[in-house]
Amino acid sequence: MSGEPPTCDRLWTKARLATMSPSVAAPYGAVEDGVVAARDGRILYVGPRSDAPAFRAAETIDCGGRWITPGLIDCHTHLVYGGDRAHEFELRLQGASYEEIARSGGGILSTVKATRAASEAQLFASADRRLSALIAEGVTTVEIKSGYGLEQQAEIKQLSAARRLGRERPVRVRTTFLGAHAVPPEFKGRSGDYTDLIAGSMLDAIAAQGLADAVDVFCEGIAFSPEETRTVFAAAKAKGLAIKIHAEQLSNLGGAALAAEMGALSGDHLEYLDEAGVMAMAQAGMVAVVLPGAFYFLRETQKPPIELLRKHGVAIALATDANPGSSPLTSPLLVMNMACTLFRLTPEEALAGLTCHAAKALGLQDEIGTLEAGKACDLAIWDIERPAELAYRIGFNPLHARIWNGQ
Amino acid sequence: MSGEPPTCDRLWTKARLATMSPSVAAPYGAVEDGVVAARDGRILYVGPRSDAPAFRAAETIDCGGRWITPGLIDCHTHLVYGGDRAHEFELRLQGASYEEIARSGGGILSTVKATRAASEAQLFASADRRLSALIAEGVTTVEIKSGYGLEQQAEIKQLSAARRLGRERPVRVRTTFLGAHAVPPEFKGRSGDYTDLIAGSMLDAIAAQGLADAVDVFCEGIAFSPEETRTVFAAAKAKGLAIKIHAEQLSNLGGAALAAEMGALSGDHLEYLDEAGVMAMAQAGMVAVVLPGAFYFLRETQKPPIELLRKHGVAIALATDANPGSSPLTSPLLVMNMACTLFRLTPEEALAGLTCHAAKALGLQDEIGTLEAGKACDLAIWDIERPAELAYRIGFNPLHARIWNGQ
Ligand SMILES: [Zn+2]
Ligand SMILES: [Zn+2]
Repeated sequence: MSGEPPTCDRLWTKARLATMSPSVAAPYGAVEDGVVAARDGRILYVGPRSDAPAFRAAETIDCGGRWITPGLIDCHTHLVYGGDRAHEFELRLQGASYEEIARSGGGILSTVKATRAASEAQLFASADRRLSALIAEGVTTVEIKSGYGLEQQAEIKQLSAARRLGRERPVRVRTTFLGAHAVPPEFKGRSGDYTDLIAGSMLDAIAAQGLADAVDVFCEGIAFSPEETRTVFAAAKAKGLAIKIHAEQLSNLGGAALAAEMGALSGDHLEYLDEAGVMAMAQAGMVAVVLPGAFYFLRETQKPPIELLRKHGVAIALATDANPGSSPLTSPLLVMNMACTLFRLTPEEALAGLTCHAAKALGLQDEIGTLEAGKACDLAIWDIERPAELAYRIGFNPLHARIWNGQ
Repeated sequence: MSGEPPTCDRLWTKARLATMSPSVAAPYGAVEDGVVAARDGRILYVGPRSDAPAFRAAETIDCGGRWITPGLIDCHTHLVYGGDRAHEFELRLQGASYEEIARSGGGILSTVKATRAASEAQLFASADRRLSALIAEGVTTVEIKSGYGLEQQAEIKQLSAARRLGRERPVRVRTTFLGAHAVPPEFKGRSGDYTDLIAGSMLDAIAAQGLADAVDVFCEGIAFSPEETRTVFAAAKAKGLAIKIHAEQLSNLGGAALAAEMGALSGDHLEYLDEAGVMAMAQAGMVAVVLPGAFYFLRETQKPPIELLRKHGVAIALATDANPGSSPLTSPLLVMNMACTLFRLTPEEALAGLTCHAAKALGLQDEIGTLEAGKACDLAIWDIERPAELAYRIGFNPLHARIWNGQ
């Protein structure tokens, strides 16, 4: 009925908005005096108060000038695993040799052993604590990879725990099958046989149960070759699954270009990526996911080619890479600071890395990642005076409220 | 009456203790099946359950196998200040030149301006938020420096805000007068005149009001010379105040040795400290406070001489150095990780750095810093399986409960 004011479920007023939308010209897509209206979990209106219809809202929230950003998106985590590696961390710092650590059960295979030994309920419970840390800093969407089972049932157990997190916690979970994370001990020296298993019966079972949204491969000298990567990706694509790659972290095998050619959503790590690889990613519209936590924790010195990524217009996403071996990190805000401090991203690029670009890295750019009408109403409301504070502070959480699907 | 069981106010049982006491031989001074008894805010008994008297406790807390450490001590902070430097951080990352940043009001003098302009209530309120972050990670004692007023009333305002935090929050606050933090604009080119003012009427007023427990000087080419440092220290000692020094951060002026000679509690930063300086500190029983947050944020490459400090038996403390310009960091747990990752401390050294050694850096080693009978009952109770987890994880807070003076 014309003349009636539009209705909404919730209306946030007196807010400053970092929409991160390319259609708003200001830095951060900022709107100084903004409102957000939600209906049925989605954004009905977002923008200047002066342009907003006179909503009839079931609930109105005065934000008191606080900043609203899109809910944060952690697009690369290994959140579900058994055990931890604190003892190995301590042994290393006490000067233990590589052999001593291996003898004491260190390295990725110790996590594989602990993950295989854990029940799904145990995996859920330990990941749930880590997920709470992400949620407490405004995360509304998280990607979770398998890759510590390295055998069908254990990979399924990890993915099932991840799916359960998505059902039981107020967060959107995207799962990624990373059977090709490491060559399991049973296949030592026979990585090709293991790759065939992944691309065959393992992927069959996981796809049949709908446990994975995407498939990832660690393409590296210590893991899987480009040829093996191609085999896994081809099988994933045949199932209609998205593909992603851990590439160019320790050396340049051309993994990112291979993944670009095959239509991958993202290439992740990328410290050793060269300009040809950057151009291949740009051409394919692939996202570069950089992971400063692993760079910091492993004390790497080779940084990802940020200038080349900017030059060729590749979207740069950030993520915690939360995992027990190389990035036991569960703070997206600290990732923003590390990206600025260590990789020299600007605070605006860092926020884009955890919002709009992270959404694209998950293929969800039409659903989340910016404050735009029609998208899911995922918001983070911050007690800050300017968005740059999110990247500037270290170990300080100014989150005031977090809204997921309008709630 | 003999035969009666001893009484206590609270009894923590089924705990694993990291006493950090030198009288317990195990790493971390650990006791696997321990109890802590508190009476009148102090530790009445701490040790193995098997040796404990049968206490009659007003309240008994089953810790379920959790670890108890001494409450954390942040022995070097600049927690009270006006404004922040997020805008400067952003400008730098956008490639602004030094001149552009200076023109836009960057640098320490921007914080001085904001601090002078703020009311004591405003300084209290902004510091209170940061203090909450420290408390949330188990801090029970914090040192707070002035040094952004650089004139008598503004320094008094900072120290008064710090004292008020100690009165109103459940935390022990030690205040340090750092008038000699930078040469104020009014004294440009006349640092000696400013030093005389500090050592004269400023210190008179601050000491008369009991606002400072210690006096600190930033001894550096860009700040105060060793001779000026000596002048301030002599005046402080004449008032019976403890002394501390910011030394050898950017160059080696011999500040630590000078401070050792004058009986300072600690030398802080110390990246450029040489072996002669280390030996002078060892001789004097002075504590080395290393500040990995500033090292990280400023992207320094020269690390403090950890090996030499170990060799000569100098106690190493850690602190956040929380401040807006070079370490906007309010996470003691992250400081532990940074000390291990960047400076290669062991997790046990890192925990000592925030407990027993930090207590010594404040001259409070008889009162706090270890779990020992007679000391204040300041505890941090953690949901962890081993103490090394505190340093291993990044951006994850496993604090279960925090006890200050037995409460
Ligand atoms: Zn990864
Ligand atoms: Zn300092």
